[in-house]
Amino acid sequence: MLVLVTYDVAVSKLAGQKRLRHVAKTCEKYGIRVQNSVFECQVDATQYKQLQYELLAIMNEKEDSIRFYELGNNYKTKVKHFGMKETINVDNPLIF
Amino acid sequence: MLVLVTYDVAVSKLAGQKRLRHVAKTCEKYGIRVQNSVFECQVDATQYKQLQYELLAIMNEKEDSIRFYELGNNYKTKVKHFGMKETINVDNPLIF
Repeated sequence: MLVLVTYDVAVSKLAGQKRLRHVAKTCEKYGIRVQNSVFECQVDATQYKQLQYELLAIMNEKEDSIRFYELGNNYKTKVKHFGMKETINVDNPLIF
Repeated sequence: MLVLVTYDVAVSKLAGQKRLRHVAKTCEKYGIRVQNSVFECQVDATQYKQLQYELLAIMNEKEDSIRFYELGNNYKTKVKHFGMKETINVDNPLIF
């Protein structure tokens, strides 16, 4: 199924910038980045649990926000995109 | 139905910062902001078309990216949130 992961990580401190990169790298293992803080992940139920587990272990629940949206298997008609498709390299420093 | 709107607006120039605020203000008419660039909008088919029309009129297709995800009517079990719930004031300057 397709799961959308969106996140806001507080980057005012160095630790936050590190978490941001770590969240992105973790999502990258499960899917593709479609926007700065948005990943589309093709996962089965077990992988989805694992992804949640890994992200929760990284995030700071007091400062960060992570949302998961389950779009199911026939999602193609449910997704619309307009504008540029940036292929974002997770290793580049994220400048917002 | 619930429609998720996620966007990246290029804010390196003043025009982009203006577009970013305008996109957020437009989304605010249709739904609630759940993360910096993520809105959840409760819309019918007509309102959804109108929302798309308004956002496409604002964005710069060469620099910005807007994505729509249709989550349907029974979405409650499809959405998971972890971490802080920021109530973001659209009028505050957006610092990434």
